[in-house]
Amino acid sequence: MKKIGIVMGSDSDLPIVQKAIDVLKEYGADYEVHIYSAHRTPEQAREFSRNARANGFAAIIAAAGKAAHLAGAIAANTTIPVIGLPIKSSTLDGLDALLSTVQMPSGIPVATVAIDGAANAALLALQILSVEEKEIAEKLDSARAKAAEAILLKDKKLQEI
Amino acid sequence: MKKIGIVMGSDSDLPIVQKAIDVLKEYGADYEVHIYSAHRTPEQAREFSRNARANGFAAIIAAAGKAAHLAGAIAANTTIPVIGLPIKSSTLDGLDALLSTVQMPSGIPVATVAIDGAANAALLALQILSVEEKEIAEKLDSARAKAAEAILLKDKKLQEI
Amino acid sequence: MKKIGIVMGSDSDLPIVQKAIDVLKEYGADYEVHIYSAHRTPEQAREFSRNARANGFAAIIAAAGKAAHLAGAIAANTTIPVIGLPIKSSTLDGLDALLSTVQMPSGIPVATVAIDGAANAALLALQILSVEEKEIAEKLDSARAKAAEAILLKDKKLQEI
Amino acid sequence: MKKIGIVMGSDSDLPIVQKAIDVLKEYGADYEVHIYSAHRTPEQAREFSRNARANGFAAIIAAAGKAAHLAGAIAANTTIPVIGLPIKSSTLDGLDALLSTVQMPSGIPVATVAIDGAANAALLALQILSVEEKEIAEKLDSARAKAAEAILLKDKKLQEI
Amino acid sequence: MKKIGIVMGSDSDLPIVQKAIDVLKEYGADYEVHIYSAHRTPEQAREFSRNARANGFAAIIAAAGKAAHLAGAIAANTTIPVIGLPIKSSTLDGLDALLSTVQMPSGIPVATVAIDGAANAALLALQILSVEEKEIAEKLDSARAKAAEAILLKDKKLQEI
Amino acid sequence: MKKIGIVMGSDSDLPIVQKAIDVLKEYGADYEVHIYSAHRTPEQAREFSRNARANGFAAIIAAAGKAAHLAGAIAANTTIPVIGLPIKSSTLDGLDALLSTVQMPSGIPVATVAIDGAANAALLALQILSVEEKEIAEKLDSARAKAAEAILLKDKKLQEI
Amino acid sequence: MKKIGIVMGSDSDLPIVQKAIDVLKEYGADYEVHIYSAHRTPEQAREFSRNARANGFAAIIAAAGKAAHLAGAIAANTTIPVIGLPIKSSTLDGLDALLSTVQMPSGIPVATVAIDGAANAALLALQILSVEEKEIAEKLDSARAKAAEAILLKDKKLQEI
Amino acid sequence: MKKIGIVMGSDSDLPIVQKAIDVLKEYGADYEVHIYSAHRTPEQAREFSRNARANGFAAIIAAAGKAAHLAGAIAANTTIPVIGLPIKSSTLDGLDALLSTVQMPSGIPVATVAIDGAANAALLALQILSVEEKEIAEKLDSARAKAAEAILLKDKKLQEI
Repeated sequence: MKKIGIVMGSDSDLPIVQKAIDVLKEYGADYEVHIYSAHRTPEQAREFSRNARANGFAAIIAAAGKAAHLAGAIAANTTIPVIGLPIKSSTLDGLDALLSTVQMPSGIPVATVAIDGAANAALLALQILSVEEKEIAEKLDSARAKAAEAILLKDKKLQEI
Repeated sequence: MKKIGIVMGSDSDLPIVQKAIDVLKEYGADYEVHIYSAHRTPEQAREFSRNARANGFAAIIAAAGKAAHLAGAIAANTTIPVIGLPIKSSTLDGLDALLSTVQMPSGIPVATVAIDGAANAALLALQILSVEEKEIAEKLDSARAKAAEAILLKDKKLQEI
Repeated sequence: MKKIGIVMGSDSDLPIVQKAIDVLKEYGADYEVHIYSAHRTPEQAREFSRNARANGFAAIIAAAGKAAHLAGAIAANTTIPVIGLPIKSSTLDGLDALLSTVQMPSGIPVATVAIDGAANAALLALQILSVEEKEIAEKLDSARAKAAEAILLKDKKLQEI
Repeated sequence: MKKIGIVMGSDSDLPIVQKAIDVLKEYGADYEVHIYSAHRTPEQAREFSRNARANGFAAIIAAAGKAAHLAGAIAANTTIPVIGLPIKSSTLDGLDALLSTVQMPSGIPVATVAIDGAANAALLALQILSVEEKEIAEKLDSARAKAAEAILLKDKKLQEI
Repeated sequence: MKKIGIVMGSDSDLPIVQKAIDVLKEYGADYEVHIYSAHRTPEQAREFSRNARANGFAAIIAAAGKAAHLAGAIAANTTIPVIGLPIKSSTLDGLDALLSTVQMPSGIPVATVAIDGAANAALLALQILSVEEKEIAEKLDSARAKAAEAILLKDKKLQEI
Repeated sequence: MKKIGIVMGSDSDLPIVQKAIDVLKEYGADYEVHIYSAHRTPEQAREFSRNARANGFAAIIAAAGKAAHLAGAIAANTTIPVIGLPIKSSTLDGLDALLSTVQMPSGIPVATVAIDGAANAALLALQILSVEEKEIAEKLDSARAKAAEAILLKDKKLQEI
Repeated sequence: MKKIGIVMGSDSDLPIVQKAIDVLKEYGADYEVHIYSAHRTPEQAREFSRNARANGFAAIIAAAGKAAHLAGAIAANTTIPVIGLPIKSSTLDGLDALLSTVQMPSGIPVATVAIDGAANAALLALQILSVEEKEIAEKLDSARAKAAEAILLKDKKLQEI
Repeated sequence: MKKIGIVMGSDSDLPIVQKAIDVLKEYGADYEVHIYSAHRTPEQAREFSRNARANGFAAIIAAAGKAAHLAGAIAANTTIPVIGLPIKSSTLDGLDALLSTVQMPSGIPVATVAIDGAANAALLALQILSVEEKEIAEKLDSARAKAAEAILLKDKKLQEI
């Protein structure tokens, strides 16, 4: 099964990104996590991206805050799907990271998820895998069913109060 | 090869969505286009989404404006990747559609592209296909190379002036 | 007397929604509270909405945060008034929930109140009941008078200092 | 059957408000239209609102732009439902009117619809009437069905191309 | 000397408004403070405003949060200058109060100061008095000189470190 | 009677500012209009402001767009009331000019009106004059009455249709 | 004298960028203009940046719209000053380009000018040159003086009307 | 070697500005720090700016919050590069300071860095020095290399876990 890459721009993003790692672990997906900065280690980010398809990656999750260029910088160097995860920082409540990640020019898409939406970034990567991997597809469907049951149970308990 | 679904909330979105259709055509991808509204024809949107994986779809592009719920409504009914395409309407410059599409709750990701970014929505769908389809991967790489050449040519011409 | 439905997308919304429940209790209104998610339990949300009029509901309050589709998803399945209550979450200060709730397309209105404005959501539901229920109308008028008196008393005390 | 009031802050709002009038006409609802400004003719706005319930109104639609206080000013003087219709003006793309209309303090709700969403303001008023008026309820349901059919027809035609 | 009126929409605004009171006290200005709500005690707000000029007021400071209509409601009932003081509340960081206060329609100006800018609201009122009151003008000039000296002293101390 | 100063940052602001001039003319107020830029002719702006009180000005209207510093720069050099008129330019829909004008630091108030709200800037200046000038006060009241009548007439005509 | 580099992400930015070129020409500065995209020709952008100091550049102006990564991508590969010029595109009024350009992470500054502020981008580059180049400094001072005179002349003409 | 000026509008900005001072110290740059307010001590700000080039300054960093006019006021009085550092205050999350700093009119550029981006303001000043100062250029390059190594080390450690 193909791997999922996770790249973050700074280790300060790890507390948010950890939720993505946890989801991938939970699904038994194969993944690699890296700290590469679009601006401070651009070469490593580029090398990783350029070789991603050849190295067996199906998708790359890129997490960054502020003028979040990381997802775009990675997307510029690969044609496998790149998932942008905007991180909220101390000013502007994440709007800067969201716009810097999602408003990509024509030709270089970034599949953007919600600000600090790390779990969804991982789930989107798993959905991409699931196009060919039946087992992942089944797990995703089963997780959905469980989430629904959990909500229905909460609703039921609420009725009892 | 798996198909790409394109769903728009209203036929007024077609002028923007057409660019996505054109890109899919150009790549020889198999696709289906529908007008289903999250609010006015929720059942058709649901039925289409529920059966999408079984019907051979690899991904669904969902285009909508204003309180753009379509991508989320589709994503709630399938676990294949759903690509959200926010459409700019007459007020708020597309910010409403962007936030309504991208800020999805945990568990139901939507892979959001730029406001009116129809070409990128199609390219992202093709990138998802490319995970398993070598030919698509090669075409994507080759298109990148051509786009780069076109820019370099423009740069060269600029130098001559 | 007809009932008021309250639906929230997640039990994390309960601390805010509780203020709406308290207001309905205070007025002796008949109500039902549910946790139904537009995305995680779309069928339950739909079934509840579809049958709401037949089941004696006069209005439904729908509370959700982020890309808050719940009110719209409910409004798509009923023609009784749906009151949207946008909930502030950890990013963007509630603007995402407000725009996702209020910017509905033509044909499917959602009666939106302020971000985290749970008491007003309940009061709006009571106002809808009051169109036919004199007793509710009188209670609403009397509460307004009391609120005015409370402010005037505060003003009076302020003058004494 | 009870009446619907429509109040606009300026006759420059009429081109937008006309869509609300058209919808009410289409449904055979009884309505009254007024130009009353929260700031320039506050007394008339107040008198109209204070007597609205006694004069047989079920709801009032209030349309205004910029620092749109009209809906709030009317809501302060009645306990029947007040529907706020924010109008886009020449600056800030309608965001000022939206926030001025929807962010009401606790105790005085305004049921806000989308910026320039006049048709939905009228439909919401009809939904309020429909709580007791079966005929209106049936017409609303039937209009929904027709809107769905229209979309499905457009979808069908799209398939033929 | 004419008086300055201070009106706030809720006693929860008092911690901010207190700074305006302190400034007026410091300058020995004559003032009156009231809690009047545009929506909950509209009549008192109106009566106060209508009689303000006759009662010897030179200006009224109106403080309110969220859909801050108070300044506009007061300005609609007097032609003495009304100073709008937008108060930050728990959502949207004060932007709603700012736009609701400043974006007034033609004919009814509100002299708006910064969000939570209570000291400046009082200083603006004093500046209005100063047009005719030499003593106030001199105090304002002298306060400016003192503020400048304080900054220069801080700058001097900084140089010593 | 004291004069009103009008200062604009650029002659491109004149089409908007003209409405302020027209209002002052209509009221027979004494005024002076200048083009002084906070950044390009800071000395002239400063000299004008410093001497404004001594030269018989009661208030200064300062119009500027983008990073609109003009009103603040003038307010820093006088203690008569300064009215800030934010001008919409080609980007950001006037939000930049509004925030640059209104968010003044403590000590230096600017009485800000709506974006492009030139008529209100003039009316606010007249209201400041009216504190001592009975005739202006009466004209302002009378204009309010006429505006109200005009609206009531429009309302009456609307009823006839 | 050192050169100024101008890089734009797309030839569609040329109409705005031209104003920067015109200013540099007017000052007789030595410059080079290139079309390099952060995403479509990242290698050329990188090569140009890396060698910029060695090739005699004093500063690089980088113009881009939407998720404007170009200035950041260039700044990541050089330590000469990089001037970011955000370009307004068809959605969000330039806010996306501004935030993507200015909100750079610690370590990699971009000297950002106003949205579409091409003339100022060039003037900032000239100011950087002027630190060592007396002639440029004198020309800048002289242009300031001329701009001031032009405004004073306009003010004088205004007085004559 | 030329000096760097640092000016802040208020000593409350010092905790943020300190990071800029620390960076300049670290590089052994010659600098001067002042508290000058655009509004409260405009003359000192002006005098400092006017003489800055003659006094051996290569660039001035200007830090201010809210309606942050300081950088613009300084830039209006010198033609050496002025670096604007917008400071986040208690409302609007720094957006007001950013727009007030960056949206400068044509003719008077301000080189704006991120909200609270003090380290980058200092680095930009050093980059300007580096155009002529080889030693600074080498230190900047070497700091970049070290920052890259630090990230790579963190990445390496992450792989070991």
